[in-house]
Amino acid sequence: MALADNCPIREGRIIGYLGPHGTYSEEVALRLYSEEKVDFKTYSSIDMAIKAVETGEVTQCIVPIENSLEGSVNVTLDILAHEANLYIIKEVIWPVRHNLLVKNKGEEIKVIVSHPQALAQCRQNLRKLYPDAELRAMNSTADAATLVASGVGNYAAVSSQGAAALYDLQIIAGDIQDSSTNCTRFIVLGDRPADSSLQNQYKTSVVCKMNGERPGSLCEILQEFAKRDVNLTRIESRPARTGLGNYIFFFDLDGSLKESNVCNAVEAVKENSLWFKSFGSYPICTL
Amino acid sequence: MALADNCPIREGRIIGYLGPHGTYSEEVALRLYSEEKVDFKTYSSIDMAIKAVETGEVTQCIVPIENSLEGSVNVTLDILAHEANLYIIKEVIWPVRHNLLVKNKGEEIKVIVSHPQALAQCRQNLRKLYPDAELRAMNSTADAATLVASGVGNYAAVSSQGAAALYDLQIIAGDIQDSSTNCTRFIVLGDRPADSSLQNQYKTSVVCKMNGERPGSLCEILQEFAKRDVNLTRIESRPARTGLGNYIFFFDLDGSLKESNVCNAVEAVKENSLWFKSFGSYPICTL
Repeated sequence: MALADNCPIREGRIIGYLGPHGTYSEEVALRLYSEEKVDFKTYSSIDMAIKAVETGEVTQCIVPIENSLEGSVNVTLDILAHEANLYIIKEVIWPVRHNLLVKNKGEEIKVIVSHPQALAQCRQNLRKLYPDAELRAMNSTADAATLVASGVGNYAAVSSQGAAALYDLQIIAGDIQDSSTNCTRFIVLGDRPADSSLQNQYKTSVVCKMNGERPGSLCEILQEFAKRDVNLTRIESRPARTGLGNYIFFFDLDGSLKESNVCNAVEAVKENSLWFKSFGSYPICTL
Repeated sequence: MALADNCPIREGRIIGYLGPHGTYSEEVALRLYSEEKVDFKTYSSIDMAIKAVETGEVTQCIVPIENSLEGSVNVTLDILAHEANLYIIKEVIWPVRHNLLVKNKGEEIKVIVSHPQALAQCRQNLRKLYPDAELRAMNSTADAATLVASGVGNYAAVSSQGAAALYDLQIIAGDIQDSSTNCTRFIVLGDRPADSSLQNQYKTSVVCKMNGERPGSLCEILQEFAKRDVNLTRIESRPARTGLGNYIFFFDLDGSLKESNVCNAVEAVKENSLWFKSFGSYPICTL
């Protein structure tokens, strides 16, 4: 990593993501780095993948941050706010198509396993298709597929087409997510800000704890953006971890900190905050 | 239920909650109804407990809605917004003390099981105590305790003291939540608004989809509360389920709809919303 500063495409780059093989994170990682020479390393949880960037075990990691049906991936937001000091390098939006996988067709389905977010994204359809089946949480959609592949009876997994192929499972229902527009937003995290000299569409993300909990405080912050014509694409509150009723707020903005209106709005928010952190500006990547 | 209108304490009331025996929901339910004649019914998921109120299978249900470390319980918010037509009858804040339970002391711990929210509430401590253990999700903290009680080797469960007693497990670490102020807010849901003739501290909850996604829209709504001195205790965004970037907003307010400033503010928000739903006013219950 010492040579990296003079080397735009670093040699020996390792990209971390949530494993095992067959996760949606893997689908995105393989596609995103398809034309680059990188190695991959899987982790059994999102927080371990993020921590690996901090320790230098991997160069970057790719993790989910928001789903169109299920909302924020809380562990990602909380580690970015409270534990890690990393930058967002890139954003990728990935259409998520869930399938129901079994080992042998025709068996009665009594238990449906998957990652809690995937189960939640299909909850209404699963209740219609299998009203009596128990929904059981697993660490990842691919873990669910491996459990079903291990041959436990009467189990089905909500997972990807890739996992079906990888673990030799049968798809008995395709596109079972509750909305056809089901997408997950992934971010690439690194230990330095994204290179913003490229001509792309940029976003900027910050988190802050407001100076006062009254509705007026949030309004004042929103006005710092509005009066400079900075478009806010997302606002999300998370616990400040200092007790019930205390929150921190994440803001995603259109534009880069190299643009003066964005930079000035962010500076004003920083000045009005008790605590503030910027994750930098980063390009929106379309695959 | 036909007699209920004339009968302040209804006969034959059944209260639903997330089971099996030994969950935190059960702790709260038993305490909350300790002086009333009710029956209880457990459900294997939060959504099933809520749906049981709609179908009339139970009279009320008690479900978690927010934790001081982990934030919203999304399934509760999403069903209230998109699927159920219920009212909040009561709010209860419950201190949550997690423990690490094993069948036999002295065994190496390789896998730690619990509900994803409980694992998340102890994530930092568990990483310190057992850096190599795998954290594995279960449907409830009590399900985790029953799995450990079944005798699988090298497993530990994050669960309550009550579950330890109930399933004959040993506590090897107490108070393992990452914050000493760890609390969960539970709500009681019913099919009619709370009786607000009592002299209690009240809150009011609403959800809406704003008329426009620009920062100005949220600010206008916040100003409807601010200019009438209505204190906003919480704001939470959730996906509108119409695609990434579209949100609905939940607002919790101090006060009751019987107070004119609260009622007028809520009416103004309703008029400025594309879609709006009120969960009514309800007392804050201290146990």
